[in-house]
Amino acid sequence: MNDFVFHNPTMVIFGRGRTDEIGKVTQPYGKRVMLLYGQESARKSGLLARVGSSLTAEGIEFIERGGVQPNPLLSFVRESVEIFRAENLNAIVAVGGGSVIDSAKAIAAGVRYAGDVWDFFDAKAQVKEACPIMVVLTLAATASEMNNGCVITNGDTQQKFAASGPPLFPRVSILDPENTFGVPLDHSMYGAVDAIIHVLEAYLTGVSEPTPLQDRLVEGLIPTIREAADAILLDPCDYDARANMMWAASLALNGLTTAGVNDYNFPMHMIEHSLSALYDISHGAGLGIVAPAWMRDECSRAPRKFAHFAERIFGITGKDDTHVALAGIEALENWFRELGVPVRLGEADIPGADIPRIAENAVMLAKRWGMGKVYDAARIEGVLRRAD
Amino acid sequence: MNDFVFHNPTMVIFGRGRTDEIGKVTQPYGKRVMLLYGQESARKSGLLARVGSSLTAEGIEFIERGGVQPNPLLSFVRESVEIFRAENLNAIVAVGGGSVIDSAKAIAAGVRYAGDVWDFFDAKAQVKEACPIMVVLTLAATASEMNNGCVITNGDTQQKFAASGPPLFPRVSILDPENTFGVPLDHSMYGAVDAIIHVLEAYLTGVSEPTPLQDRLVEGLIPTIREAADAILLDPCDYDARANMMWAASLALNGLTTAGVNDYNFPMHMIEHSLSALYDISHGAGLGIVAPAWMRDECSRAPRKFAHFAERIFGITGKDDTHVALAGIEALENWFRELGVPVRLGEADIPGADIPRIAENAVMLAKRWGMGKVYDAARIEGVLRRAD
Repeated sequence: MNDFVFHNPTMVIFGRGRTDEIGKVTQPYGKRVMLLYGQESARKSGLLARVGSSLTAEGIEFIERGGVQPNPLLSFVRESVEIFRAENLNAIVAVGGGSVIDSAKAIAAGVRYAGDVWDFFDAKAQVKEACPIMVVLTLAATASEMNNGCVITNGDTQQKFAASGPPLFPRVSILDPENTFGVPLDHSMYGAVDAIIHVLEAYLTGVSEPTPLQDRLVEGLIPTIREAADAILLDPCDYDARANMMWAASLALNGLTTAGVNDYNFPMHMIEHSLSALYDISHGAGLGIVAPAWMRDECSRAPRKFAHFAERIFGITGKDDTHVALAGIEALENWFRELGVPVRLGEADIPGADIPRIAENAVMLAKRWGMGKVYDAARIEGVLRRAD
Repeated sequence: MNDFVFHNPTMVIFGRGRTDEIGKVTQPYGKRVMLLYGQESARKSGLLARVGSSLTAEGIEFIERGGVQPNPLLSFVRESVEIFRAENLNAIVAVGGGSVIDSAKAIAAGVRYAGDVWDFFDAKAQVKEACPIMVVLTLAATASEMNNGCVITNGDTQQKFAASGPPLFPRVSILDPENTFGVPLDHSMYGAVDAIIHVLEAYLTGVSEPTPLQDRLVEGLIPTIREAADAILLDPCDYDARANMMWAASLALNGLTTAGVNDYNFPMHMIEHSLSALYDISHGAGLGIVAPAWMRDECSRAPRKFAHFAERIFGITGKDDTHVALAGIEALENWFRELGVPVRLGEADIPGADIPRIAENAVMLAKRWGMGKVYDAARIEGVLRRAD
């Protein structure tokens, strides 16, 4: 097992109706907070008013700040930093999914930093301080509610970059599965794909030494997410399915499944980030396209581990590891199709002719994420052609 | 899924040689600390000197306090509280396994409390404050290094009671698998049994609603612990086996496998605590005796779940759940025997004639742990007779 530090101080409050506790848990951290949200669905569902009432009941003043976009933008973050300062706020309550929480993290780091917030994403500065962040989660997908990372898109440069740091763990995240009942089915399924790929990245890349415990955690999370996704498709208001999906997605990227894994990386996310930096596509949908393509490209390099995946997740057995591995990838892809998730570039209206441009963008990320030696433009193009 | 709060702020520093970081991580919490340990093996192995050097290098003064016993005693805790105060200390560094860490927690709560420390165990007071605790773990077993509970024995009343509270999470726990190379094989195996029973308690009692994710986490931990135990028997210095055992044992009782499980309880620990309160027996050895007996007594009440255990852990299948369940319990018991762990009272020199006396002690615990309505003396005696 590899050496690691595991430290996840976020308090998760999980269950039906626990949204109403947001005021009480925010109270120790701020008297004037930014209530951050995305689209107007949060208002229409009544959730925003409910959160506002809970804050007011605890004597907490708040400024509403809406409009976070699905692939959240640096420009919005910068404006929000200015508003936070001008309004003399001291904490952020994020009501939303990964985009809103990621924006909250960027803003939280920005308000305690004298320079430009993009410095954290452009590797010019490290996050050493941040204002407190509380979360009311509305989408099971990214695990941003239980980790210290965030991803922001610079619209000017078309760079979708990540930043992280211990101060960015939310202090408290409220996971109330009922808040996800209204998530449209397509986005619910993109969330399932995102969570599954989160655990598969390290599972399939960190293969230099055996990590049986971490593998088994992954092999427990994936079937749970699959069962939950299938049940949600049948009944979007199935509480247990939404609850299992929500908790599994949080555990899928909270540091647990990667702790102790050697030399893992995030190549599928790396390539996908370029897709959603360049096109109006949901991250989970982009992963549906990239993941099977990357897996087919990669499986000959670690056929035993890919075959292990096929055996443990889909019960596929056979003598030849590569055959078993490919059958497993096909089973995963077929299941993505059943969920209505795109698995080819064309299904998301991304022309095959754009592949070199996407690869060029991804090369930039490959370098930043320590994969520059392995992933040059030719190799990334090779992966993307498998999705053409 | 049941509602829950998951909050585990302990920082785990895991890996080879990381013991030497103890000074650095203690530095923010204390300038004069109690260096708490158990028997002289910690000194003989050189570990105590190594920890002392690391503290000294950071300018931290320390008072050595050794002599914690395997079933740690209230009298020792009370004396330590007095020493801590007299020496004007401000934190505790615990070098040891569950007994030392549990004692550290009791002392840490005691020094910030005006009354008698037993009040926390006797349900007369709640732990609201504690001095900071740092850990260098030397035994994979109890998970005390990553939870906020502790168990102390009152020698005068022969009560082995538990206390818990958020301030009792260690701030930092160093898990250096090499520190467990020297643990005698019998105690290493008792640790494996303890960790397995930790996860089986909620798995086998929290059966009122399905919790597929939590079940799968357990079904991932148990085989990992089994493989690691078997490998340690062959080679006590197998780093990966010791590492897998160490991390699996921590995850086995850090709140992860129980979060979301309904109405679970700890009946096997309840009965065992009376064994080790009354006799000089290791907790893990006591569990080896109690667990198969309790499982045989219980399995007719939830045959499907016990059969599920037999299927997933031992690959036993069949048409009749009770038959499958009993075969699974036998397989577990046989494996305990292979480890050299006692599975009958007589194997630990506990006379069958004492069963009423043990049951009488356990009834007290059953009431305190909310199982008073289910576990009267007759039922506990019935369980223990299966171990006679």
